[in-house]
Amino acid sequence: MAIMTRSEYIASLSKMKRRVFIMGQAVDNPVDHPLVRPSLNACAMTYELAQQPEHADLLLATSNLTGRRVNRFTHLHQSPADLVAKVKMQRLLGQQTGCCFQRCVGMDAVNALDSVTYEMDQALGTEYHGRFRQFLWYMQEHDLVADGAMTDAKGNRKLKPSQQADPDLFVHIVERRPDGIVVRGAKLHQTGALNSHEIIVMPGLTLGEEDRDYAVAFAVPADVPGVTMIYGRQPSDTRKLEDSRIDVGNREFGGHETVIIFDDVFVPWERVFMAGEHGFSGLLVERFAGYHRQSYGGCKSGVGDVVIGAAQALAQLQGTDKASHIKDKIVEMIHLNETLYACGIACSAEGKPTASGTYLIDILLANVCKLNVTRFPYEIARLAQDIAGGLLVTLPSEKDWANPETGPLLDKYLRSVDRYPTEERCRMLRLMENLTLGPGAAAYLAESMHGAGSPQAQRIMLARLVDLEGRVKMAKKLAGIRDE
Amino acid sequence: MAIMTRSEYIASLSKMKRRVFIMGQAVDNPVDHPLVRPSLNACAMTYELAQQPEHADLLLATSNLTGRRVNRFTHLHQSPADLVAKVKMQRLLGQQTGCCFQRCVGMDAVNALDSVTYEMDQALGTEYHGRFRQFLWYMQEHDLVADGAMTDAKGNRKLKPSQQADPDLFVHIVERRPDGIVVRGAKLHQTGALNSHEIIVMPGLTLGEEDRDYAVAFAVPADVPGVTMIYGRQPSDTRKLEDSRIDVGNREFGGHETVIIFDDVFVPWERVFMAGEHGFSGLLVERFAGYHRQSYGGCKSGVGDVVIGAAQALAQLQGTDKASHIKDKIVEMIHLNETLYACGIACSAEGKPTASGTYLIDILLANVCKLNVTRFPYEIARLAQDIAGGLLVTLPSEKDWANPETGPLLDKYLRSVDRYPTEERCRMLRLMENLTLGPGAAAYLAESMHGAGSPQAQRIMLARLVDLEGRVKMAKKLAGIRDE
Amino acid sequence: MAIMTRSEYIASLSKMKRRVFIMGQAVDNPVDHPLVRPSLNACAMTYELAQQPEHADLLLATSNLTGRRVNRFTHLHQSPADLVAKVKMQRLLGQQTGCCFQRCVGMDAVNALDSVTYEMDQALGTEYHGRFRQFLWYMQEHDLVADGAMTDAKGNRKLKPSQQADPDLFVHIVERRPDGIVVRGAKLHQTGALNSHEIIVMPGLTLGEEDRDYAVAFAVPADVPGVTMIYGRQPSDTRKLEDSRIDVGNREFGGHETVIIFDDVFVPWERVFMAGEHGFSGLLVERFAGYHRQSYGGCKSGVGDVVIGAAQALAQLQGTDKASHIKDKIVEMIHLNETLYACGIACSAEGKPTASGTYLIDILLANVCKLNVTRFPYEIARLAQDIAGGLLVTLPSEKDWANPETGPLLDKYLRSVDRYPTEERCRMLRLMENLTLGPGAAAYLAESMHGAGSPQAQRIMLARLVDLEGRVKMAKKLAGIRDE
Amino acid sequence: MAIMTRSEYIASLSKMKRRVFIMGQAVDNPVDHPLVRPSLNACAMTYELAQQPEHADLLLATSNLTGRRVNRFTHLHQSPADLVAKVKMQRLLGQQTGCCFQRCVGMDAVNALDSVTYEMDQALGTEYHGRFRQFLWYMQEHDLVADGAMTDAKGNRKLKPSQQADPDLFVHIVERRPDGIVVRGAKLHQTGALNSHEIIVMPGLTLGEEDRDYAVAFAVPADVPGVTMIYGRQPSDTRKLEDSRIDVGNREFGGHETVIIFDDVFVPWERVFMAGEHGFSGLLVERFAGYHRQSYGGCKSGVGDVVIGAAQALAQLQGTDKASHIKDKIVEMIHLNETLYACGIACSAEGKPTASGTYLIDILLANVCKLNVTRFPYEIARLAQDIAGGLLVTLPSEKDWANPETGPLLDKYLRSVDRYPTEERCRMLRLMENLTLGPGAAAYLAESMHGAGSPQAQRIMLARLVDLEGRVKMAKKLAGIRDE
Repeated sequence: MAIMTRSEYIASLSKMKRRVFIMGQAVDNPVDHPLVRPSLNACAMTYELAQQPEHADLLLATSNLTGRRVNRFTHLHQSPADLVAKVKMQRLLGQQTGCCFQRCVGMDAVNALDSVTYEMDQALGTEYHGRFRQFLWYMQEHDLVADGAMTDAKGNRKLKPSQQADPDLFVHIVERRPDGIVVRGAKLHQTGALNSHEIIVMPGLTLGEEDRDYAVAFAVPADVPGVTMIYGRQPSDTRKLEDSRIDVGNREFGGHETVIIFDDVFVPWERVFMAGEHGFSGLLVERFAGYHRQSYGGCKSGVGDVVIGAAQALAQLQGTDKASHIKDKIVEMIHLNETLYACGIACSAEGKPTASGTYLIDILLANVCKLNVTRFPYEIARLAQDIAGGLLVTLPSEKDWANPETGPLLDKYLRSVDRYPTEERCRMLRLMENLTLGPGAAAYLAESMHGAGSPQAQRIMLARLVDLEGRVKMAKKLAGIRDE
Repeated sequence: MAIMTRSEYIASLSKMKRRVFIMGQAVDNPVDHPLVRPSLNACAMTYELAQQPEHADLLLATSNLTGRRVNRFTHLHQSPADLVAKVKMQRLLGQQTGCCFQRCVGMDAVNALDSVTYEMDQALGTEYHGRFRQFLWYMQEHDLVADGAMTDAKGNRKLKPSQQADPDLFVHIVERRPDGIVVRGAKLHQTGALNSHEIIVMPGLTLGEEDRDYAVAFAVPADVPGVTMIYGRQPSDTRKLEDSRIDVGNREFGGHETVIIFDDVFVPWERVFMAGEHGFSGLLVERFAGYHRQSYGGCKSGVGDVVIGAAQALAQLQGTDKASHIKDKIVEMIHLNETLYACGIACSAEGKPTASGTYLIDILLANVCKLNVTRFPYEIARLAQDIAGGLLVTLPSEKDWANPETGPLLDKYLRSVDRYPTEERCRMLRLMENLTLGPGAAAYLAESMHGAGSPQAQRIMLARLVDLEGRVKMAKKLAGIRDE
Repeated sequence: MAIMTRSEYIASLSKMKRRVFIMGQAVDNPVDHPLVRPSLNACAMTYELAQQPEHADLLLATSNLTGRRVNRFTHLHQSPADLVAKVKMQRLLGQQTGCCFQRCVGMDAVNALDSVTYEMDQALGTEYHGRFRQFLWYMQEHDLVADGAMTDAKGNRKLKPSQQADPDLFVHIVERRPDGIVVRGAKLHQTGALNSHEIIVMPGLTLGEEDRDYAVAFAVPADVPGVTMIYGRQPSDTRKLEDSRIDVGNREFGGHETVIIFDDVFVPWERVFMAGEHGFSGLLVERFAGYHRQSYGGCKSGVGDVVIGAAQALAQLQGTDKASHIKDKIVEMIHLNETLYACGIACSAEGKPTASGTYLIDILLANVCKLNVTRFPYEIARLAQDIAGGLLVTLPSEKDWANPETGPLLDKYLRSVDRYPTEERCRMLRLMENLTLGPGAAAYLAESMHGAGSPQAQRIMLARLVDLEGRVKMAKKLAGIRDE
Repeated sequence: MAIMTRSEYIASLSKMKRRVFIMGQAVDNPVDHPLVRPSLNACAMTYELAQQPEHADLLLATSNLTGRRVNRFTHLHQSPADLVAKVKMQRLLGQQTGCCFQRCVGMDAVNALDSVTYEMDQALGTEYHGRFRQFLWYMQEHDLVADGAMTDAKGNRKLKPSQQADPDLFVHIVERRPDGIVVRGAKLHQTGALNSHEIIVMPGLTLGEEDRDYAVAFAVPADVPGVTMIYGRQPSDTRKLEDSRIDVGNREFGGHETVIIFDDVFVPWERVFMAGEHGFSGLLVERFAGYHRQSYGGCKSGVGDVVIGAAQALAQLQGTDKASHIKDKIVEMIHLNETLYACGIACSAEGKPTASGTYLIDILLANVCKLNVTRFPYEIARLAQDIAGGLLVTLPSEKDWANPETGPLLDKYLRSVDRYPTEERCRMLRLMENLTLGPGAAAYLAESMHGAGSPQAQRIMLARLVDLEGRVKMAKKLAGIRDE
C-alpha cells in the first residue's frame, strides 16, 4: 500500500528546496513557519486519518491503475460510490480541521485531466492520456499532494489572454522545444501550495484559436527552477505569530494561499498534458470546476458542522441554549448546512462514467451545489454571530488574563454560566471569531464565494446546461399551445 | 404483468358506489364531475406512462412479493436505485401534469407500513406484517390507487386526542369485535381521494398510553359503508365549470382534496395493521412523513419545471427573453428548483434497508428536502409572476374574445411579439395564473407548505435527528477545550 | 366644502353611459354588477371615511386652488406633512378594505401633471399648466374619481412605439385639429376604471423625437364616445357570482382592472396637457411613478395589517397562537410590513417642493419603497399560509354546510378551539384564501409586483439616481488613493 | 459657542489620568497608542466636521438649555427635524470614517435620561431631572464626549442580577452614603470608551423590586478612581501595529471597545440619575435602545456607502463594472442600504415630544430599523465580497512589494485594468477586507448585529408595541365575524 505517514509527509516536504516568500521574507523551509504550520497540519490530516482503520473506507481506495490501496486524494473515481465517498471524506476532514485542508484541488485536477486527455487523444490523435496516467501512477505510488493551479492573474477582466496589455497575465507557452515547453505566467489563490509536492497547471477559461498558446496543462514539482511562491495574507493571520494559545482561535489548523509565478519554467513533454489544443480547454475547465464544485458540498458542510457546534457550545456556555429563538437559529443553520451536503451527495450519486472510465459528477447539480455554497455559509455565519453575542469582537486579549492586575477582573466579569471556566467561553469565542471573521472566514466565506469559480460562473453553467426549451414545451403542452 | 390501462382504471372507479358530496350536492359518479375530471386525468397519467416503453424503467418495478412487474406506485422499494427512480418518476409526472397526480401518498403509506408492521411484530409478537403484505399483494395484482390518510381533524391544536372536547376529532377505535374493529373520526386534506380504490388510514402523531385507541392503522375500500367524502374547494375551481378552453389555465389536469368521514366503519382484522400499539405510532408517522417529504423533491421540482417553462415562454412571447434581468431570474428559478431535486435525490441515494428489507430514505435529508420545498416554490412563483407581467391578473375573459364587439379589439391590443398569436400569450398567462394563484397554486404553494407536514414539523425532526453534541465536541476539540 | 357622500358618489357613476364589457357581456350599469360592486364599495370608502370626523385629518385637505376643504385624493400636496398624511390615509384604507381602493392612481396623476405641466410651460412656453389647474379645480369641486392611465398595450417589449408592427400599441395622436386632438390606442391594467368619472391619460415611457405623437397627456370623462372598457378577470372572481356569504372571503370589498380602448377619441384642447413634447415624457413618468411607488408603502402595509390580523386570528381560532414559532412568524410579518410603511413615510418626510409649489417625494426612497413592496408581501403571504394550515385550500364549500347531510359532519369535524364556532374558522380561512390566492392576491401580490412599475423599473431608477461615483470617492479617500 | 477643535479635544483627553490596559500592558496615554489612534481620529471627526461651514447644519444645534450653538452630539432633540438631522449627521460621519465614530451612545444616553428623569420626578417626587440637566449643561458647555454604558457582564443569561452566582455581574449600588453612592460591576462592549471624557451608566434591563440596587444611573469622569478599562481585540487589529500603509485597509480610522470595571466607585448625588427606582429601569432601556436603534439607520448606511463605493471601485479597477450581474449586485446593495436609511428617517420624522420637551423617535419604527440592520449589512458585505473577487483573502503583504525580488513580480501579475496602478487595486482590496473581515467588520457586521441590542431584543419590542388585536379586529370585520 502506497501510503505515507504524517511524519514521512512532513519530511518529504522539508527536503524540497523551493523559492518561497512570506510577508516580505525569503523562507527556506516554509513548513516550519508559524504562519504555514497550521495549514500543514490540516493537510497532514489527510495522511493521519488514512492511517486510522475507522476512516479507511473514506480515506483509502483501490487504484484502478495498480490495484493497490491509495489515498483517495490521488484516486480516479471508479463509481458513484467513489464520488459519494469523496464528499463524505471531505466533510469528515472539514469537521476535524475547521478549515480548508487543501488537498482537494489536486484530486479534482487529476480526475478532470484523466477524462479530458483521453477524449482529446481520441479526437485529435494526441498522446496525452498515457503520459498523464504515468504521472498519476507516480503520484499514487508516492502518495503526493498536488496543487491544482487554474486561476490566472487575468489582468483586465474584459479582455482575452492575448488582448491583455501584458501577454503574461495568463500562463502560456513561450517556447516549444524538442524536449518540452517553456511556460510563463502566474496562478493566483493557490490553496495549500506550500504543502504540495507537485503543481498541476491547467488553463482557466475556454480559449479560441488566437489564444492557443494559453491552452496549456502540465505538472511540475513544486521546487522546479523558475517557480516562486508568495504567501497571501489572511485576516488576523499574525495571531499565529503571537505564540497565542487562545486568541488564535483554531490553534492547530488553518489554511493558506500563495501566488505562484512561473518565470520561464521548462516542462518536459512527459509532463505536458495539453499544449495548444484550445478546443479542449473549455471541457477541462468545466470538468475540473464541476469536481471542485462538488467538493464544496463536502468540505464546507464539514466546517459548517464546526460553526454549528461552536454556536451551540456558546449557547450552552452562556445559558441561552434553551431559548426558543436560539434553538430555532441552530435548526436553521443545520438545515442550510445539510442542504449543501445534500447537493454534494446528489451530484455524486448521479455520477456517470466518462470515456476513460473515470466517473464524472452530474455537472448541473454540482453547479447547483456550489451556487448554494456561495450563499448559505454566509447566512450560517450570520446566525452564528447572532448566537455568539457581541463579545465576539470585544473580548480582551489573552495577555490581559496573564496580567495579574487585569486577569482576575476579567475572570470575574466574563464568567457566564457558573460551572464553566471563563477560559472555555473565551476559547469558543475566539474559535468563532476565527471561523467567521478571521483566517477561518477566508476559507468558510470568501473561498466559499470564489473557490471553484465565483457565483456568476455557476449561473452561466446553469443557463447552459438546462434544457430550457424542453421546459417551454412542457408548459405549452399543458397550456394547449400547439408546438410549431 | 399486473398493470391496468387508463380506461380500465377509470372503469374500475366508476364501478364503485361511494358517498360523495361536491359543493353541496351528492354525486353518484364523481369521476365524471367536471371539478374532478382533471384530477382523475392527472392520476390516470400514472397508468398511461406505465404503458409507454420509454418510461417503463421509472414507472414499473419488479415486485419483491411476486416477482412480477408492477406499477412503482404499488412497489416496496428494494434499493437506493428504487428510491431514486421514485423521485425521477415523480418529477416526470409533475412535468407532464403541472399539478399533483395524487398517487404518492398511497405509495408512501405502504412503504412505511411495511417496515413498521414488521418491526412491531418482532417487538410485540403481533401479526400485522403478514396481513399487510397480503393486502399489498392484492393492491399490486389489481394495480390499485390507495389514498393514504394521516391528517386528523385535530380540533384544538394544543390538546391531545383524548383531551379534545369531542373525542372523534382524531380517528379512533370505538369498538373491538371478534371479527374486526369499528372506527370513527375524519381525515382532512385527502389528496386524490375520489380517484382511489382504497383508503389506508394511519395515526397522525406520536401517541401515549392514554391515547391507545387512536393508534390505529387499517385499509378499507373507498366504498365501504360509513365513509363519506366531501370535496374541498380550490382557488378558481369553478373555472372548470365554465366549459373554458383558456381561462381554466390547465385544461386537462388538476388536483383535489376531500374530507373523509368515518362514521362507525367496520374493518375486519385482516385489514387492520395497528390497533392500540401506540408505541409504534411515532415511528409510523416518521417513516411515512419521511417518504412523503422525499416525494416532494420529485413532484414539486417537476411542477417547478412547468413554472419555469411557462415563465420562459411568456418572456419569449412578450419579447423580454433576452433581457439580462429576465435571464438571471430564470437562472435563479432553475437553481432553486434543482436544489429541491438534489435534496430528493440525496435522501434517496443515501437510503438504507429496514429490517423488513424495504429501503428507507435518509430521514434527516428527507426533512431537509421538504423544508426547502416550503420555501423555494414560493420564490419561484414570485419570480414567475415578475416575468409574467401584470396581465396575469388583468386579462379579460375568453368570452370577451368570443364577443365580436370586443374580440378584435383584444386581439389587436394584447398582441405582443408579432409572430405569436395573441391567444398563445393568453393561454400561457392563464396557465401561469393557474400555477401561482389558481388551483395549481393549491398544489404548488399551499401543499408544498403543508403537505407531508408543515415546516415546523420538519424543524422539529431536524432538531431531533442531528447529533448536535457531536458538533459541540468537534468545536471544543478545535478550540482546545478538554471535554469532561 | 366640495365633498360627496357615498350615495351621491354611486348615483353620479350610475348616471354615466359608458361602453363596458364584463366576461363577454355588454353591461349598462357596471356599478350594479356583482363582479364590480365590491370594488365600488372599496372606492366608496374614500368618500365614507371623509365624512367621519375622526378621519378628517387624513381624508381631507385644504385646497391650494380654492382654499376649500377637499378630499385628499384630489389634492395637490403642499408640504411633507401632506405627503405623510397621504401614506397614512392609504394605510387606513387598506386596513378597512383589505384590497385596492383604486383612487390613488388619479391622485398621483394630478400631482405629477401639476409640476410637469408647470415646468414644461416654463421651458417651452406652452400653456398646459393653466388648463390643467382648471381641470383639477373641476375635479376638486365635484369630488371626482379619476383613473390614471399610463400603461400602454406595449406589444413587443423590445420595440419602441413607432417600431411596433401595429402603431396603435401605444396611445398616440392620430389627428391634430383646431379644437383638439384625436387619440387611439389602449391602456391596460386600469385599476378601478369602472368606478371613475374621469380618465387621465399619460405616456408610459421616455420618448424620443421619432415618437413625439406618443407624448400625449389628457383627460376625458369616462363616458366619452370612443372609449370601451373590458373587465379583467381575477383569481376566484366568480365566487362573487355565487351569492356567497363565506366562500367569497372578503364579501364587501374587492378590486378590478379593465382594458381601456381609445378608438379615435376626440379631446378638446382645454383637456390636453401634453401633445408632442416628448422631452418631458420621461419626467412625467418618473414623477407619476414616484408618487405611485410612495403610495404602495401606505396601501400595501394597510392590507398587510389585515393579512397579519387574519393570521393571528387563525392562530387563535386553531389554538396555535402561543406556540413560539407562530409568534415568531407573526413578528416577522410585522417587521416586514412596517419596513414597507417606514419606506413610505421616509420618502414622504423627505419631500421637497417643485417649481409649481406642489411637493414631490424623495424619488430615490420612493423607488426603494416600491422595490421592497415587490418582495415583502410575498413573504408575508407565505408566512400567513404557513400559519393558516392546509385547510386554506381544502375547505369544503359553504354549500356543504347548507346541506343537512354534510353540514353537521363538517361542523363537528372542522371545529377547532371549542369556544369558537366552526363558521368563524371557515370565514377566516376564506379571507386568507382571498388575500393570498384569490382576488385579494391580485392586489396584494401581483399588483405589488407590477403596479407603479415592475421591479426592474425601480432598479433602473436606483442605478440612475444614486451618486455612485461619490461613493467611489469616499472609498478611495479612506483607502488612501488620490483621486485623479 | 461651546465647541472644541480637534486638537483641543485630543489635548483634553491626554490630560486625563485613566487606568487603561491594552493587550496585557498598562497604558498611560491611550490616545497615542497605535491601536487606539485610528479610533480617536474617527471620534475627532465629530469635532472636525463641526468646524466646517458646509456641515454646520448637521453637526451643530441650538441648545434648548443655553440658547448657544452646541455640537449635536450633546444636544437634546427639540423637533422631528432634529431627529432627522441626527440620522443625516451619522450617515455623513459613517461615509467619512468608514467605521464607528463612537459618539452616538453618549448622545442617545443623554436624550433618554432627559425624558425619563423628568417623568420619574413627576411620578415619584424625586429630583433627578434638575441634576441631570445640570450635568448636561456642563457637557454641552465643554463639548464633551460621553461613553454611554448599558450592557452589563450579565453572567448566566437565564438568571436575574440578584440570582447570579456573583452579585457583581450587573453594576449595582453597594453602599448609599449621605454624599453619594458606591457602585460595583462592569460594563462590556464600551464603544469608544478611551475617547470619552465621561461615562454615563444606565441599567441594561427591566428590573423588579428584588433587583432595585441594580436600578442605577449616573455619570462619572472617565478618570474617576476605581474605574479600569481593558481594550477588546478586533479582527486583524495588530495590522495597526505593523506600521502599514496598505495592509491596514483603513489607515486613518477605526474603532474600539473596552471592558469598563467599576471597583467600588464613589458617585456624588449630583451625578446620580437613578438609584433604586426599578420601575423606571425598563423605560430607560427602551428609550435609550430606541434612540440607538435609530442611530444605526444613519451610521451603518454611511459605512454601507463606503462598502458600495469600494465594491464599485474594485469593479472599475478590475474591468467588471459594465457586466450586468455586477451592476445588478451594486443596485441590490444600494437598495438594501437605502432601506436602512429610510427606516432611520421614518422613525425620526414620526418623532413625538416627551413630557420634558425632548423629542422621542417612533419606537416601533426604530426597532424595525435596527432589525433590518442586523440583516442587510451582512448581505451587502456578501455581495461586496462577490464583486471583490478572491484576492480579497489571498493578497500578499505590502512587505512583499517592498522586497525587490518579489515587488516587481507582484506589480506585474496583480495589475488589472492597465491604466490603474496595481497599488490602487491592493489598497481597495485591503479596505474591503477591513470592512468585511477586519476591524471594520467588527463595526459593520458584529456591531450591526448586537449593538443597541441583539435582534431578539428588537423582535420582543415589535411583539410588545404592535396592536395585534387591532389587526385581528380588522380581519374579523372583513371576514364578517362579529366581534364579541
